[in-house]
Amino acid sequence: MVVELISVGTEILLGNIVNTNAAYLSEQCALLGLSCFYQSVVGDNAERLRSTLELALKRADIVILSGGLGPTEDDLTKETAAEVLGKTLIMDEHWREALTTFFAKRNMKLTENNWKQAMVPEGCIVVDNKNGTAPGIIMEEKGKHVILLPGPPGEMIPMFEESMKPYLLKLNPGKIVSQMVKVCGIGESMAETMILDLIDQQTNPTIATYAKTGEVHLRVTAKADSEKEAKKLLKPMVKELKERFGAKIYSTNENASLESCVIDLLKENDLTLTTAESCTGGLFTARIVNVPGASEVLKEGFITYSNKAKRKYLGVKKSSLMKYGAVSERVAEEMARGACFFTKADVCVSITGIAGPDGETEGKPVGLVYIGCCICGRTTVREYRFSGERMKIRESSVAAALTLLRECLLGYFSEVTFGSGEKRSKKK
Amino acid sequence: MVVELISVGTEILLGNIVNTNAAYLSEQCALLGLSCFYQSVVGDNAERLRSTLELALKRADIVILSGGLGPTEDDLTKETAAEVLGKTLIMDEHWREALTTFFAKRNMKLTENNWKQAMVPEGCIVVDNKNGTAPGIIMEEKGKHVILLPGPPGEMIPMFEESMKPYLLKLNPGKIVSQMVKVCGIGESMAETMILDLIDQQTNPTIATYAKTGEVHLRVTAKADSEKEAKKLLKPMVKELKERFGAKIYSTNENASLESCVIDLLKENDLTLTTAESCTGGLFTARIVNVPGASEVLKEGFITYSNKAKRKYLGVKKSSLMKYGAVSERVAEEMARGACFFTKADVCVSITGIAGPDGETEGKPVGLVYIGCCICGRTTVREYRFSGERMKIRESSVAAALTLLRECLLGYFSEVTFGSGEKRSKKK
Repeated sequence: MVVELISVGTEILLGNIVNTNAAYLSEQCALLGLSCFYQSVVGDNAERLRSTLELALKRADIVILSGGLGPTEDDLTKETAAEVLGKTLIMDEHWREALTTFFAKRNMKLTENNWKQAMVPEGCIVVDNKNGTAPGIIMEEKGKHVILLPGPPGEMIPMFEESMKPYLLKLNPGKIVSQMVKVCGIGESMAETMILDLIDQQTNPTIATYAKTGEVHLRVTAKADSEKEAKKLLKPMVKELKERFGAKIYSTNENASLESCVIDLLKENDLTLTTAESCTGGLFTARIVNVPGASEVLKEGFITYSNKAKRKYLGVKKSSLMKYGAVSERVAEEMARGACFFTKADVCVSITGIAGPDGETEGKPVGLVYIGCCICGRTTVREYRFSGERMKIRESSVAAALTLLRECLLGYFSEVTFGSGEKRSKKK
Repeated sequence: MVVELISVGTEILLGNIVNTNAAYLSEQCALLGLSCFYQSVVGDNAERLRSTLELALKRADIVILSGGLGPTEDDLTKETAAEVLGKTLIMDEHWREALTTFFAKRNMKLTENNWKQAMVPEGCIVVDNKNGTAPGIIMEEKGKHVILLPGPPGEMIPMFEESMKPYLLKLNPGKIVSQMVKVCGIGESMAETMILDLIDQQTNPTIATYAKTGEVHLRVTAKADSEKEAKKLLKPMVKELKERFGAKIYSTNENASLESCVIDLLKENDLTLTTAESCTGGLFTARIVNVPGASEVLKEGFITYSNKAKRKYLGVKKSSLMKYGAVSERVAEEMARGACFFTKADVCVSITGIAGPDGETEGKPVGLVYIGCCICGRTTVREYRFSGERMKIRESSVAAALTLLRECLLGYFSEVTFGSGEKRSKKK
């Protein structure tokens, strides 16, 4: 079945609020297996709302409107929707009583305009609102379903969960199941090139790709009559993606972040982490500390912005700074090794680069970043060239540092575990 | 003039991302004096995009589309918009070169699908994208204006600011002038209460309030035939706000951030800054380092997550940690003083708290944070109780730390400059 969303509210059109309701409802509808092809926003204007609703009813089986159910004159979603479906508004005695109780309980005066909220389209289903004074409404007419929800998320979400979801579930049996595959260290267009044939052939399951800084998320979604069948459809596609992306996949868990997976790797292997940041100025460590329980692996970190600080806290050699400059492979290496040495941590990530807009020198453009990773005495350094503004370069550096750390950890474990004879590029 | 917004992206219809682009663009259009009556969202589907664009062109003078300009097959905004306006796509040699440079600079492989991004509708204006590979496009046809922007906010916002805003400003005379007033250390509802009478009376100029973590931004906007007249209308209202909020106003500059204002204060007075962070794990320092040129005041910072690190790098006393706990006024004070002592910086901000979800102990709930500020030997510590999730508590802590630092600096300068006899609460 096809659903369409209409958000009503001039405050959305003016950009005073972000339309989080639409995101919530879209996600819920997708999970219920409803196809959503359009979303619209209109202001509190009867004529424009009417034309938007009429168009939506032509395109969809179900139209969900949120907002404009308040007691004031400019709230006219209910009135307009009733008119479009040819329904008269009548007083709902049950809701009239509910309103009286609501106000009495809060010692609030019920003003005349509040009675407007007890008027409902004839023949509709009136849905309880535990968090406000506007009831929800479901109207059915000629095989179409129109659902009205209040605008404040604190009222809308509980009402949707409790009453509208069960209603929609009954309308649309069929199950949708999706599986996330999260990839790091690869750009979006490269990732898509690697699966172009799968995307071209896709019908059921489908693959959607989402780009994040330094990551690509792939969502595989299948639809079937039962959850079991949908899962069965998913399986070969997920397997295929695993084969193509291999170790670049850091998680298939919807809620796992790259930093949480890296911390898990460290924890599982009883390794502690420290950090030595220059151009990122704490941003890398802050991402590590995003993860609850990070304190188990990270005890301390250094923000060594000046050359002096790099020497004092990390033991970077004066001669290296003079000869190679602060933004160099050598200094990144000495930072990582030094931090491990002074803190006795098992692992250190170091970052030194030019975030711009100033600081460019000959042969060292803005965006040049060196990231070092020292694991139990072995240091890998990699050179990166990022583009964009200061913040973008710093965020790209952090994502690359997490990816490099993960890669080095996996390499280290495989050698430790299997005693592989294969030699990786490394320093000293 | 009437503008309409179309956001293109299946990920929005699936609820995978919140449509913040629409909120940003709506606000910008309102500021430019453009009327927006409809917003739409469509997926990456040529037919549905075409019908949506055709409808928008009937209703509006300007249509702004964002998203769907990527290199992959399902990105088809440019192709569809060109078709609707009857334009052929041709290779833009300038952008072709820009792409080659972009990939060469990053040592990345340019895949075949990337060339698609250098194809542009004939006769269009090609707009530079400093943060990505998709150029912006402006098409003009029969008095209508169609603007194409990339979807990622990190690309879309700078492009809009630099190129699209000046273009739209020329299209829509009649002048709108706005003035930002940025306030810190006060909540949104308190700020609104303080100016309720002004908001109730407002016609021209108007006041809009926007809440940010730890800050409130007030935008005063006036409309008149000329810029001069509009500015004249603004003046008394801005003056009134300055009287009401006083020193809580940290800037009236649209582009100034709280951190950049704090750095300016430090620079003007030749003071250096260091940091000692626990629960925020680098987030405070990272915000300081957001500001280009931060290296002039910040040389180093400490992330002392463990008790041991607090002792080793900041000289926090073992007895203080035992007696008061790591999250205490005393430890925040010793952290700030210690960091100043060891680094010889003039100023230090320290942060220690419980970000949750674990770590709560008796009398010390999740959200309890102590922030210390030491300026030339004088330390102020303040206690905060924040609510929300881990990330929210850490962001609130950072905003509060910037506000406290600013407040302490202003107090310090006023005493130093005027030798005021007034005593401020301070430690030792």
